[in-house]
Amino acid sequence: MHTLNVDLGARSYPIHIGAGLIDCAERIAPHLRTRKAAIVTNEVVGPLYLERLCTGLARAGIEAIPIILPDGETHKEWQTLNTIFDALLRGRCERSTTLIALGGGVVGDIAGFAAACYQRGMPFIQVPTTLLAQVDSSVGGKTAINHPQGKNMIGAFYQPRLVLADTATLATLPEREFSAGLAEVIKYGLIRDTGFFDWLEQNIDALRTLDAGALAWAIERSCRNKAEIVAADETEQGERALLNLGHTFGHAIETGLGYGQWLHGEAVAAGTMMAAELSRRLGWIGDGEIARIERLLKRAGLPTQGPALGAPRYLELMAYDKKVEAGKLRFVLLRGIGQAVMTGDVEMGDVSAAIEARCQ
Amino acid sequence: MHTLNVDLGARSYPIHIGAGLIDCAERIAPHLRTRKAAIVTNEVVGPLYLERLCTGLARAGIEAIPIILPDGETHKEWQTLNTIFDALLRGRCERSTTLIALGGGVVGDIAGFAAACYQRGMPFIQVPTTLLAQVDSSVGGKTAINHPQGKNMIGAFYQPRLVLADTATLATLPEREFSAGLAEVIKYGLIRDTGFFDWLEQNIDALRTLDAGALAWAIERSCRNKAEIVAADETEQGERALLNLGHTFGHAIETGLGYGQWLHGEAVAAGTMMAAELSRRLGWIGDGEIARIERLLKRAGLPTQGPALGAPRYLELMAYDKKVEAGKLRFVLLRGIGQAVMTGDVEMGDVSAAIEARCQ
Repeated sequence: MHTLNVDLGARSYPIHIGAGLIDCAERIAPHLRTRKAAIVTNEVVGPLYLERLCTGLARAGIEAIPIILPDGETHKEWQTLNTIFDALLRGRCERSTTLIALGGGVVGDIAGFAAACYQRGMPFIQVPTTLLAQVDSSVGGKTAINHPQGKNMIGAFYQPRLVLADTATLATLPEREFSAGLAEVIKYGLIRDTGFFDWLEQNIDALRTLDAGALAWAIERSCRNKAEIVAADETEQGERALLNLGHTFGHAIETGLGYGQWLHGEAVAAGTMMAAELSRRLGWIGDGEIARIERLLKRAGLPTQGPALGAPRYLELMAYDKKVEAGKLRFVLLRGIGQAVMTGDVEMGDVSAAIEARCQ
Repeated sequence: MHTLNVDLGARSYPIHIGAGLIDCAERIAPHLRTRKAAIVTNEVVGPLYLERLCTGLARAGIEAIPIILPDGETHKEWQTLNTIFDALLRGRCERSTTLIALGGGVVGDIAGFAAACYQRGMPFIQVPTTLLAQVDSSVGGKTAINHPQGKNMIGAFYQPRLVLADTATLATLPEREFSAGLAEVIKYGLIRDTGFFDWLEQNIDALRTLDAGALAWAIERSCRNKAEIVAADETEQGERALLNLGHTFGHAIETGLGYGQWLHGEAVAAGTMMAAELSRRLGWIGDGEIARIERLLKRAGLPTQGPALGAPRYLELMAYDKKVEAGKLRFVLLRGIGQAVMTGDVEMGDVSAAIEARCQ
């Protein structure tokens, strides 16, 4: 097991990474304030891992209240959030009761937001079971639900007390979801870690065949990058926004097609190519970099072209992006592999051209 | 104008108190990060004060987006919250746009929670127009909506950037609402400020006739008490819970009758008598104190008996209280006038008896 720390002063917390951690309730127990925990999961992950988690907790004398959500991004909304609140009240959960999120990014985002709001905030633990959640969404305290007009539009910055990433759970992850997680792994290489990008070019096949050593290393390096950025800029006043490489375009794809059509990581991959193409048009990177990025994403099993919504529709959807400031869109772009920057100084004609160049 | 400060380090903010402040947009403008503000108000307060506030903002070059909610505690719920989000998106509000709450406690609570959640948090300003909001709910960052099973069950601690309390707005406040606000004013005297309680006994009639000097003094002293407590214990880990004197019983009244039947302050007044009666049964205060408290509440135009829900129903409703810990109800009780304490060490028989003694 490897342990990293997210350094946020009094709200610092550990990330444990290792195979079989889901059975190690003794890692969770010290973080609980009472002998009761609510576990939010979904109808796909629940049958696989809920019993094992509950068994361990019971052994530690902790009563677990399971809350099973429907599966999928379409359910990341008010109604599902309310079913969590209803279940917490029914189970007599108090503001000192801990809520555990067991699942992927959708479960973590909505359960985290529920924890942030229930009785104005209850303790919260992340047990991510997808690659995307283990390398990205479970770390850093971003929680949210979607609004019909904008992805992650309603939410809170609310940090967990612990992240417990069991790498063995990735064995049950559908290949498409695993690839989607790789989009966020590759992102760290692109925005700030050239060495990691080089390593990924050497090891992407090993990752896709779930080589345990490669997997553990990639997850740890991703979490280390994420933890450093979050510690430096918890509420995204600056540097943290770089983590949104490909996300402005990607959110437009997700919202435009309707939530759940493309996986988040797939939309981010296509969005990353759009951001790279826009960077190329500004003369910041060349054809060589474009080719390397595209090749790695393809080898990861990811799309490198977005759906054909038309550039005007993309721009319309992007106007609701959270990075808009004074009516102006801001973009995370690349000055090289491993060097992302934020800029608002972009001609809309170039943005449209970049989108068109990267649409099916 | 008097100015107090809520001392919360980097998140400190001023409370300005004075007559006519609603016309002083120059007090608001320096706190805005952009030239746009959304104003959340309701259909009763809007016609009275919205235009004046907007005129001042326009003079300062600030575009205002009004969002008018229906009036009343019954609307402090999801659906209304969503209408705020819809309007913010329609108005292209960004996460740097400021949301201004113009109204009483319900408007402030729901608008504050909307600000806490929209794009994971937008800046927020309180312009309270009721006595209750000016002396209590606008200060300290408690925001929430109700759940059918519990008052203020879903919410956030989210501090405003500024509180602007225009005492002249109280001239348009219905007498019943003014009395409801006095319940919270009297509360400060009871929990920690004996001198203020004595002063209130001398000046309650002057307050009810809206004597400007008495009013300004009572609001300032109330806010000073609140600001001190919030600065010492922002998220209610300890001392802040004392502000809930009468609220455990009071919330049961509000939830039990259905939101909006009794005003919050009325329920708190009856709840305060129940807490006082329970304190008397524990031998902590005597008949003399009970009589003084009851007399002052009555002179303030407040009820001193709760509705006849029956003690079992009260206990059932109170079981969802946010102060419940390890399944045990905790109570804010009185060791004297000006000396509240929190205790979980109470026999349920005594609680039932105190409720019965103070029911209609």
